[in-house]
Amino acid sequence: MRGTMIHGPGDIRFEDRPDPAIISPTDAIVRISVACVCGSDLWPWRGADPITQPIPMGHEYCGIVQEVGSAVKTVKPGQFVIGSFFASDNTCPNCQYGYHSSCQHRELVGGAQAPFLRVPLADGTLVATSDLPSDELLPSLLALSDVMGTGWFAADAANVKPGSTVAVVGDGAVGLLGVLSAKVMGAERIIAMSRHASRQKLAREFGATDIVTERGPEGVARVKELTNNIGADSVLECVGTQEAMEQAIQSTRPGGFVSYVGVPHGVGLNGAQLFFSHVHLHGGPAPVRRYLPDLIDLVLNGRISPGKVFDLVLPLEQVAEGYRAMDERRAIKALLRP
Amino acid sequence: MRGTMIHGPGDIRFEDRPDPAIISPTDAIVRISVACVCGSDLWPWRGADPITQPIPMGHEYCGIVQEVGSAVKTVKPGQFVIGSFFASDNTCPNCQYGYHSSCQHRELVGGAQAPFLRVPLADGTLVATSDLPSDELLPSLLALSDVMGTGWFAADAANVKPGSTVAVVGDGAVGLLGVLSAKVMGAERIIAMSRHASRQKLAREFGATDIVTERGPEGVARVKELTNNIGADSVLECVGTQEAMEQAIQSTRPGGFVSYVGVPHGVGLNGAQLFFSHVHLHGGPAPVRRYLPDLIDLVLNGRISPGKVFDLVLPLEQVAEGYRAMDERRAIKALLRP
Repeated sequence: MRGTMIHGPGDIRFEDRPDPAIISPTDAIVRISVACVCGSDLWPWRGADPITQPIPMGHEYCGIVQEVGSAVKTVKPGQFVIGSFFASDNTCPNCQYGYHSSCQHRELVGGAQAPFLRVPLADGTLVATSDLPSDELLPSLLALSDVMGTGWFAADAANVKPGSTVAVVGDGAVGLLGVLSAKVMGAERIIAMSRHASRQKLAREFGATDIVTERGPEGVARVKELTNNIGADSVLECVGTQEAMEQAIQSTRPGGFVSYVGVPHGVGLNGAQLFFSHVHLHGGPAPVRRYLPDLIDLVLNGRISPGKVFDLVLPLEQVAEGYRAMDERRAIKALLRP
Repeated sequence: MRGTMIHGPGDIRFEDRPDPAIISPTDAIVRISVACVCGSDLWPWRGADPITQPIPMGHEYCGIVQEVGSAVKTVKPGQFVIGSFFASDNTCPNCQYGYHSSCQHRELVGGAQAPFLRVPLADGTLVATSDLPSDELLPSLLALSDVMGTGWFAADAANVKPGSTVAVVGDGAVGLLGVLSAKVMGAERIIAMSRHASRQKLAREFGATDIVTERGPEGVARVKELTNNIGADSVLECVGTQEAMEQAIQSTRPGGFVSYVGVPHGVGLNGAQLFFSHVHLHGGPAPVRRYLPDLIDLVLNGRISPGKVFDLVLPLEQVAEGYRAMDERRAIKALLRP
């Protein structure tokens, strides 16, 4: 088959690769229905993560089970499945607490920007739908594999409750789906921090009640103006930079909750400043597997359409253009059709 | 009167000072029944906090109201009162959320190691008992002013629940009272990290089920051994140093809770490490005022005796010896009698 590899910053190639095969009896091979480019794929593309050898790219996936290893019991060839970017056994103590992305046997899934994908720990990782979904639902189901699950975790980790006042830092796909998640969880007021018209529009569609275009101290001041001069109850940090983290912490009221869901790049926290901010802080790689069954129901019932974040659709072989469009912010998120 | 002043590192003097007087109509003057030395008083004593001019010391207090300003409505001369080290109005939005130590009008109380003390925002800050307490309860009531309220916040902020497995980093008075708080909150297993026999004994008396004497990576490994190899549900960081904070975070299971209640000195957190630890983090200056009514009841009903942390009693004028004894770890905490 041909699949997506990164060879260096800015160097994405769709090239010949061996077909994935069952390596461990707990593996499954999935024929990808739709794939996409993640905001986090841009870190190595921009040179922020070192690339010492060519790496297969893509970790968001849904599709049809093609083949399973001899130990796989709960998923079968022919089923439509969605999984998380971290494979997990769903049985270890960390999984039982709902932190599947800290599974004691976790493995990163890689190479989903391709027609076929090997998924380790298939029983613990993959969630099957009862029927094959219609084609029009595929983008929203694909979104559950990472970006929607991550936005949902951001809202959950920031303790969003009915009536909450929420601010979201970052207007990428995760931030926008953080807005949607906060809305579904019953937030009364949702402040989206965004300076891009198309993203503001989608944020409003997902439930944002206010848009703040300012950043840094001006952005913080604006959020405080909107929140009784104390800050928001819940702030979702959906970027992963120092500026975004500081903006999030300072926009939160004392006793409020900050979540952070993008891998921090060069972020350092001053202990004393954090102490006197009085915020709760929680984040990490989203335990997407925990949320998959409920989120699949929400999509199948038509209650959420997270697939709206895909504003660019490309044939899989044009994957490199997807990276460029997202890097240049011409697209929020690129969907790839094999 | 004579009161306690710090003039420089190691230089505590009990010397002539003006009697405190009502400055604002919301002030009260309290005649101190018992006072004490706080672990945090040792930071300037050890030179870790700069001292640019002589500073009146002491922020833990209980006593009899001597005089109130014209605007004070809820406390009266003759009442026995306890207050927090942060004066608070108890009405602003932050107070209403229970974060009195981030009150929009907060003021640090200072100068309690003296016979008389001015307390700002008396109505919001002081909690009166219905009767004058017996002399033997005074140490436990005094402890509520900071050290017990802070230990309680540590357990609360670390989400201690019935059945929880808890670890406590730090065997100072706050850590020991964190053990007691966790016990009252129903923790099933409480691991005290301590290498001092007298403190281990008190930790056991307060409810510790296990003692870990190792520190750093060895201490973390020992806690993991005791907790299903994943770490504790709740870890209370009661020191304020980099080593203690790292030990606390690494001793917590993914999805578990770390609290930190000592002012961090030189603590920095690596964002990516914190991210992959998957812990919840919450702390700050303890909102003691929130807990005072309930903790007073627990003391008056004989359910808790936090005053046991006072293992040295001195006349107030020997306050400097209290600092020395605590610095040299000859005493856990020094009580001062005016």
